This record gives sequence, C-alpha cells and structure tokens, in this order.
Amino acid sequence: MGEENLKSLIEKWSETAWEDYIPHISIDCVVFGFHQASLKVLLVKLKDVESWALPGGYMGKEEVIDASAARILEERTGAQDIYLQQFKVFSELNRSEGFFTEYDDTLWHKQRFVSVGFYALVDYTTVTPVADELSDRCEWVDIENLPTMIMDHRAIFDRALLTLRRQLNYEPIGNKLLPEEFTMPELQKLYEIILGKKLNRGNFYRKMIGYDILDKQEESRRGGAHKAPNLYKFNLEKYSAALKNGFKEGW
Amino acid sequence: MGEENLKSLIEKWSETAWEDYIPHISIDCVVFGFHQASLKVLLVKLKDVESWALPGGYMGKEEVIDASAARILEERTGAQDIYLQQFKVFSELNRSEGFFTEYDDTLWHKQRFVSVGFYALVDYTTVTPVADELSDRCEWVDIENLPTMIMDHRAIFDRALLTLRRQLNYEPIGNKLLPEEFTMPELQKLYEIILGKKLNRGNFYRKMIGYDILDKQEESRRGGAHKAPNLYKFNLEKYSAALKNGFKEGW
Repeated sequence: MGEENLKSLIEKWSETAWEDYIPHISIDCVVFGFHQASLKVLLVKLKDVESWALPGGYMGKEEVIDASAARILEERTGAQDIYLQQFKVFSELNRSEGFFTEYDDTLWHKQRFVSVGFYALVDYTTVTPVADELSDRCEWVDIENLPTMIMDHRAIFDRALLTLRRQLNYEPIGNKLLPEEFTMPELQKLYEIILGKKLNRGNFYRKMIGYDILDKQEESRRGGAHKAPNLYKFNLEKYSAALKNGFKEGW
Repeated sequence: MGEENLKSLIEKWSETAWEDYIPHISIDCVVFGFHQASLKVLLVKLKDVESWALPGGYMGKEEVIDASAARILEERTGAQDIYLQQFKVFSELNRSEGFFTEYDDTLWHKQRFVSVGFYALVDYTTVTPVADELSDRCEWVDIENLPTMIMDHRAIFDRALLTLRRQLNYEPIGNKLLPEEFTMPELQKLYEIILGKKLNRGNFYRKMIGYDILDKQEESRRGGAHKAPNLYKFNLEKYSAALKNGFKEGW
C-alpha cells in the first residue's frame, strides 16, 4: 500500500476513462483568486513532475460541459460552488500528447484532446485547496511569480487573464471580492491588481460612478488622522442588471 | 444519376466521416451580414427537411479548430475569407441526435456532439451563397424573419446575436460594413440595426467621438437642400489598436 507514482495512477485512470468520458474533449480551469492586494491562480503540482498544471479533466458521457467543469474543479482542488465561465477552445495539434511520450499508445490521455478553457474570479480566502491523488500540491500561486507549467497551460492561463481584463470593460466586478462596505481606493486597487497597472484616481471615480452600481453609505469609515473616507456598497439589483444587460452607459 | 435524397447523402458521408474527423466535436457558424439597413444571417435549407440550419460540420483529425470552421463555412456556403470567432460551446444532451432518429445507430452523425459556435459579421453583398450537395438553398435571411431551425440552432443563433451586441461595448465595429466615407447617422444606423433599438443621437455622437477611432474628412457630402453632413473615415491604425487593446476610454 505504498504511495503510487504518477505513471501507475494515470494508467489505472485510463482503464476506466474509456468508459466514463467523451473522447477528445478536455477541460482546463483557470481560477483567479483575489484578496486585499494580490491576484493568484489555483494550480496543482503533479507527482513526479517538476512543472505545475491547471486543474483539468474530462467530460462525462452524460454531462453538460459546465457541470463537467464544476465537477473537475472540485475533484482536483476541493473548490466548490465556483462560477466558471467558458472562454476559449484550445486545439493546437499535439498540445497534450507530448506529455505522455513514455506511456503506451493505448493510454486514454494520449489521444488528441481539444480543451475547453473555463475561468473564474473568487476571493481566495474562501477556498482551501486540497491536492488530489495525482498531485502532491494544490495551491494559490501569485500570478507575478508563476512556475513552469505543463503542455500549453501557460498559454491557457495567459488567455484567461486577457479575458478577465477585457471583462472589466463590460461587466461589473468586485462583489464578494471586497468587504461588504469598501472605499473607492479599495475598489480601484482591485482593478489595478487585475489590470496590472495604475489607474488615474479621478477617472476611476468618474467612470465607476457612471456605471451606477454603487450606493454611497451615510457613515464613513472611522479612525485615522485624516478625513474619514466615504464607504460604498454594491447595489446588488443594479449590479445584477449590469451583469445581464451591460452597463447603463454601454450601447 | 438522379439527385440523391438527404438520407442517402448523409449515409454516404458517414462512411468516410469516421476516418476523416474527430468524433463528438462539431462546429456551427453564425455569419451575420449587414448592408445598408438590414441584418441577415447565412442559413442553409437541407434537402427533404422543412427546417433551416446554420452551416456546420466536423473537425478534421489534423486540423486546428479555427481552420476547421473556415473550411466548413466555405464547403457549406461558398463563403471565403471570413473572420470567424469562437463564442461558446453547446453541449446539451441529445442536442443533435434526435434529428437522426430514422438513421441507423452506426451513423457518424448520430453520436453525441458537443458543438463549438463561431460567429462573424460581414457585408452581405460581398458573399454570394452557394448551396452544397446536402442543401437545396443557401441564403442570407433577415434576422427579423427567421424560419424554424433544426436541433438547437435557434439557441446558437440567439447566443451569437447576444455576443455580437455585447461586442459593441468593447470593440470597434463597422470597418468594411460601411462605405469608406460615411456620416455619423449612417454609423448610428449600423449600431441601431445590430442592437435592434433606437439610440439617442447626441449620446451616440459623444460616445463615438470618445472612442477616438474616426477621422473627420475636410469635405462634406454634397447634394440635398440641407446643410451637407460631415463625413468620417475610420482611422485604421487607431481602429486596429482598439480591436487589440480595447478603447482608450476602457480601463
């Protein structure tokens, strides 16, 4: 009953995979985690391999793809109830086969796979990563300090980050990432961390007020020697409407 | 050598499909066509079937998915050199199998397929639709007057239209859809047709100028009793930059 190595675990998985999953379609999840002043991504380190990986897996024969993504993320990392969104299909030739060179050609995992990328943004303190049987680590890794990743997982990550950044232009963001009441500089910091650049304070304020998704609170934050900063809450009704129909100042 | 019916054509296709394509992955294309004051979509009417279909097909074993989509669109409709973009994966159970009820279970097409949706927006006068062997018609159909569609193709169309409308909030649009020089009301009309609603003229002007992708021309349009309207051109350098990095007034 010693700990099995990665190769024998994957070979065992392959035996049932032919029965359980739809061939040729895989799923990779890019879960971004924000808290205070840092942006991280949820990665696993497979046993016996130096590189890290996005949590990924395969689509059950009777599953719709969003259910597959949620199940895979939970199986690989323990993370539950994460709102995952599809963002792109990755289909380069030989994008994954090279990883399995030393395995038999009958291995399930050695087929050509077209991978559907999903992404999410959560408060990373709400998720406690749990490594699965294939991995010896599962962790929130700072995006400024990414390790080498297997296959095309770095390209998938990069595209997810681009998608998240673009999302800031047409969807509200921040609910459940900030305390219920927050200051405008705290909200600006969230945007700056995601965008990886400083923003002009006046422009940020003007644009955010224009989105009309914030309620200014009557009480401002106490303490400190300076003028107490104004506190805001998301107006959840307007926030949801903007998620669904775009911002009021959109077309 | 009489004309074959749809069933025998599909059965013949199935014989080689097992060899040619990756199983379980299909592609459906939603090509929107704009010209002057109408928005259309490119549809095919299969032989022996009342309903219409999006042009679709399968992914070659050695193809990347964007190449598959371009090939399929050309094979099914004759349309070439269309900039297709992925927008969503459609994976509902039994989304396509019901269509093939009266076919043998060994038919390629009767497997479960997960379909990757691609969309594009072109000037419809630049494409002359050509029906393929499976279809007796291939046409630009006004989106206000859509026929019944097979499988989940109406849902795929609806999602593509939603994606196109959202795209107006974060990407420039209109190059190659309007004459090289155009008036602000002509550009506004394009947005109104895509959005299916009237826009306020002053807001449209202010917002569009804010995007900083237009060059105002020195000469205005001649003719007519009233003041000649100003003419604009897209500044292609700024337009391309906005396509790549978002609008200047984005985050």
